[in-house]
Amino acid sequence: NHVLILGHGELTEPILEELEDRASVLIITPDTERAQRLTERGFDVLTADPSGEESLERARVETARAVIVATNNDAEDALAILTARQLNPDIHIVAAATHRENENKLRRAGANTVISPAALGGHFLAESAIGGRGLEGLETKLLDEEPEKVMEQTGVDPDEEFGEDAGDD
Amino acid sequence: NHVLILGHGELTEPILEELEDRASVLIITPDTERAQRLTERGFDVLTADPSGEESLERARVETARAVIVATNNDAEDALAILTARQLNPDIHIVAAATHRENENKLRRAGANTVISPAALGGHFLAESAIGGRGLEGLETKLLDEEPEKVMEQTGVDPDEEFGEDAGDD
Ligand SMILES: [Ca+2]
Ligand SMILES: [Ca+2]
Repeated sequence: NHVLILGHGELTEPILEELEDRASVLIITPDTERAQRLTERGFDVLTADPSGEESLERARVETARAVIVATNNDAEDALAILTARQLNPDIHIVAAATHRENENKLRRAGANTVISPAALGGHFLAESAIGGRGLEGLETKLLDEEPEKVMEQTGVDPDEEFGEDAGDD
Repeated sequence: NHVLILGHGELTEPILEELEDRASVLIITPDTERAQRLTERGFDVLTADPSGEESLERARVETARAVIVATNNDAEDALAILTARQLNPDIHIVAAATHRENENKLRRAGANTVISPAALGGHFLAESAIGGRGLEGLETKLLDEEPEKVMEQTGVDPDEEFGEDAGDD
């Protein structure tokens, strides 16, 4: 009943802070130095490829409570999501899109919830600048992105979705 | 009564989307190519140094409604905040810290509100993973970061604040 964290990135520390004392976590990262530092701080770490089938089996993805995917590389995230989804069709997978245009792709790969830190940041900055509190609007936005609704949307025209501007990737 | 956006970064597009039809904006960026693309899309752009006094005077910072500072470089952000605060002691300045350890420094530079997209992202990922809705906890967190309270905190021990681990900067 652990939360699996696949990979290491800028969101890892905030995630670990949020989960502290609320869930047992297991982090998979190929970076031996980071792994050692996390181990020294008392975290459970598996030094391995976070998108490898063998890694996820060793990390008991089939009995995990949820999977969090948040490296700084959306391609790596996509592969890790595909692996986790393949090994456990029912697990709740959440992911962060470093680039907004990848949000739908990470959902397609199998993530139930995908957030964009840049979109969240932009929302709060804009609301703060023009005097809104920001939470009401955000709630609508997050509800808009519930997996069910997105599934409906993405079923309509896959080409359009994948054909969007890839920006500065 | 315009919103001044100083610099260009990953949050610029989300910010422009949020402000669309809600405020008139003026973007200052030194990047001529980006400036041209934004102009073609109908935005008011000043191609200039976003932390220069002359730029901010030309952009009428003294009559602006608010200033948003969100490049991908916290050092540039700090300089832009210092310039804006110097030219308009009363204006509302909001900023994004690319690295969380710079949040307090951007407040010190003169920003009224500083958000961390990574902290926001980590919050929502963790809440989604363990089944919370996330908005209640986030509200508490954002209220904790109101400028007044932070001022109180930072007044206590400046050395400790600036002595924190600078991470992978
Ligand atoms: Ca990512
Ligand atoms: Ca920044």
